[in-house]
Amino acid sequence: MNRKAIYPGSFDPFTNGHLDIVKKASVLFDEVYVVIGVNVKKSRTYDSEKMKAAIEKTAAEKGFDNVIVVVHEGLVADYAKANGIRYMIRGLRNNMDYNYEENIASVNKLIYPEMEYIYFRAENIAVSSSMVRELRSFGRDVSVYVPEPVFEII
Amino acid sequence: MNRKAIYPGSFDPFTNGHLDIVKKASVLFDEVYVVIGVNVKKSRTYDSEKMKAAIEKTAAEKGFDNVIVVVHEGLVADYAKANGIRYMIRGLRNNMDYNYEENIASVNKLIYPEMEYIYFRAENIAVSSSMVRELRSFGRDVSVYVPEPVFEII
Amino acid sequence: MNRKAIYPGSFDPFTNGHLDIVKKASVLFDEVYVVIGVNVKKSRTYDSEKMKAAIEKTAAEKGFDNVIVVVHEGLVADYAKANGIRYMIRGLRNNMDYNYEENIASVNKLIYPEMEYIYFRAENIAVSSSMVRELRSFGRDVSVYVPEPVFEII
Amino acid sequence: MNRKAIYPGSFDPFTNGHLDIVKKASVLFDEVYVVIGVNVKKSRTYDSEKMKAAIEKTAAEKGFDNVIVVVHEGLVADYAKANGIRYMIRGLRNNMDYNYEENIASVNKLIYPEMEYIYFRAENIAVSSSMVRELRSFGRDVSVYVPEPVFEII
Amino acid sequence: MNRKAIYPGSFDPFTNGHLDIVKKASVLFDEVYVVIGVNVKKSRTYDSEKMKAAIEKTAAEKGFDNVIVVVHEGLVADYAKANGIRYMIRGLRNNMDYNYEENIASVNKLIYPEMEYIYFRAENIAVSSSMVRELRSFGRDVSVYVPEPVFEII
Amino acid sequence: MNRKAIYPGSFDPFTNGHLDIVKKASVLFDEVYVVIGVNVKKSRTYDSEKMKAAIEKTAAEKGFDNVIVVVHEGLVADYAKANGIRYMIRGLRNNMDYNYEENIASVNKLIYPEMEYIYFRAENIAVSSSMVRELRSFGRDVSVYVPEPVFEII
Repeated sequence: MNRKAIYPGSFDPFTNGHLDIVKKASVLFDEVYVVIGVNVKKSRTYDSEKMKAAIEKTAAEKGFDNVIVVVHEGLVADYAKANGIRYMIRGLRNNMDYNYEENIASVNKLIYPEMEYIYFRAENIAVSSSMVRELRSFGRDVSVYVPEPVFEII
Repeated sequence: MNRKAIYPGSFDPFTNGHLDIVKKASVLFDEVYVVIGVNVKKSRTYDSEKMKAAIEKTAAEKGFDNVIVVVHEGLVADYAKANGIRYMIRGLRNNMDYNYEENIASVNKLIYPEMEYIYFRAENIAVSSSMVRELRSFGRDVSVYVPEPVFEII
Repeated sequence: MNRKAIYPGSFDPFTNGHLDIVKKASVLFDEVYVVIGVNVKKSRTYDSEKMKAAIEKTAAEKGFDNVIVVVHEGLVADYAKANGIRYMIRGLRNNMDYNYEENIASVNKLIYPEMEYIYFRAENIAVSSSMVRELRSFGRDVSVYVPEPVFEII
Repeated sequence: MNRKAIYPGSFDPFTNGHLDIVKKASVLFDEVYVVIGVNVKKSRTYDSEKMKAAIEKTAAEKGFDNVIVVVHEGLVADYAKANGIRYMIRGLRNNMDYNYEENIASVNKLIYPEMEYIYFRAENIAVSSSMVRELRSFGRDVSVYVPEPVFEII
Repeated sequence: MNRKAIYPGSFDPFTNGHLDIVKKASVLFDEVYVVIGVNVKKSRTYDSEKMKAAIEKTAAEKGFDNVIVVVHEGLVADYAKANGIRYMIRGLRNNMDYNYEENIASVNKLIYPEMEYIYFRAENIAVSSSMVRELRSFGRDVSVYVPEPVFEII
Repeated sequence: MNRKAIYPGSFDPFTNGHLDIVKKASVLFDEVYVVIGVNVKKSRTYDSEKMKAAIEKTAAEKGFDNVIVVVHEGLVADYAKANGIRYMIRGLRNNMDYNYEENIASVNKLIYPEMEYIYFRAENIAVSSSMVRELRSFGRDVSVYVPEPVFEII
């Protein structure tokens, strides 16, 4: 048990695209920490503790028994460092994602130099969290874009 | 009358860059729907109904008699689907635009799979709506960046 | 009959990805000219006249009766200008394609200023001509990547 | 004294990355105007006048005697034009920066056509102003990311 | 022993940048296959068998005892499929790399759908193989850009 | 006389786009070295010594009296270092150019760490050298794309 990975995000809400990345990480790593980052200055649409429960339920239903879900207020790199989690998991859909991640990566490396980025390709069509929120605000059915346990709470 | 195209935007305000795209679309398609998307959660600087009238006046002055202007609250893909408008018109200035459009396109295709994206090159120097608003807020003359009927209402 | 479009390429060979673009163009335009550009300085893997026949056979089988296939040695913009074909069709798979096309577009516009670029999204997984050639050189079956009439001659 | 350059930004706060660009500009140009742009509609985290003093103190300590710091409300291009400052200095970390700058550059050129953009490579690892603010909000020591006089006021 | 990864390339020559990626992969995976792809149609500067020996010697000196080096003529995806190697390792230096890899990835996925791409960040300054060849052709010392065993054979 | 800049290229041929960059550099720097890089392994279309003379004639006609043209076989960074030329001039047309330059820049910095890159925006429509060669090969008049003295020798 030493190949620990962290997969941080606001997960507001957690989508099928996120689930796809968690699945890949769950196969490759011994432990996968899904970290819901909360920030007092940024308001969420969905409650972080309820989202935590929904992600845990999703992971359990899928049989991902090495996935740990936590709510964390603070810097992701601090959490990873404190818990000895060296692998940072990110999904890439396109080169906008890539450029964005690279900007953050350089700061995370300053805080936790041992951190190693692992980019997975996000191959399936993935509707983003903000798209789900927008579709939801127009009363659209979003059940095909999020896992069932998430759909129940949004 | 079956080659219908939709050109959505917030048009806050409608600029000469937008007009350039409408002109190109007006020549290629039988009907061009300029759809002003409004969203209760995003406040506008200029009134959507006044902007609609200004765009209609602009189109009339230019002789684009196949341009229809509408104000729509909701998803653009829903409007297109409901009205059988298969062609989605977008202008590309650079590859930031391209990446941005691609992200949205994948969602629109989920809602309305028959939708076909048509990208036109935005060749002329086009001052964006947000730039016009900023220039305007500093009291600058923006008459060279927007059509005359738009200039009258901003 | 005045909405003429040109879709140029080396088509060495013509692939299912190209066919997808031709199909879209065939629906939107009155006439679509598929122009196989040949260049004495660049050797081809497959004979241009045989490829022309294979594309014509493909178009006929698909019922695209407004598709004209020609072999042209020289500048594409010259061909378009001489034949009054104003719309230039290009497929975009990603932003590498976009940047590449933009570089060429600016030259084509110098030669034929009335030329209007129309970019279609290349949505389906498209194996490129060079990939087909490479797969073929390793003896792989490439029948799923090219139309049947093209497969017969490569 | 005629090679004047302007280096505008919100500098909220001024970072070591900014200092690196100022140093390069200070060597190449006769006068370098560091312009802190303020905008009544965008609130700052750190006071602009205090930041001005901190940048001046930093420049003095480094021996950059041709650096002038000003607080300006309004368009940067207007300030440059009014003061006959033809060179616009920008630092590039990656191609997101590049695309962003190009969008603004085209507007600045409309306002002040004689303006010449000079891009320097931002080679050192530079924590951005927003990153410094975020790190600061979590109580982290940011003394290695900003000059000493800036650290004293944030 | 089931987390096998493949790291393909022409390695003409193998550089310190490549070594950095092999090191990361060696820690994360149970077995790492460094595959030197050869192609009768593309001539190499350095002999593939000698390069294989040099890479093996490098891996041995570094203590990477789970690194296997092979010379392979044919498609990388075929090799991976035949040997049940599901993880494809790629290093990313910038978004040109990213776009390039994405183009190839879609073809590899067609051949071997179970293949999973893993992108590592190539953080250290890495002089590419082609740069090493060019520097070498001008008689420059390239000992700092390649591992010692590679330097001995180039 | 200490602000020396180098502007390297194959200049095969030197175009109006190149001339635009030389003009900008000539105003900002005390001395501008236009370095025609030749490489025994890469054949040129136009003779390097004749091109040198044509560029010199162009610079003289334009009154750029601080422009020095040289033919150099070897690494540009070596030439710059040997002659104490710290500023490397590059023109950027788009982000493909940017990414390309960044790749080379990191190597040049290894050879000559004091080298400082200066990117100018290439604003005017610039037909590239390869485009000029292609247009020329089809017998087109290229007089509007290159300076008069260059046109005389191509």
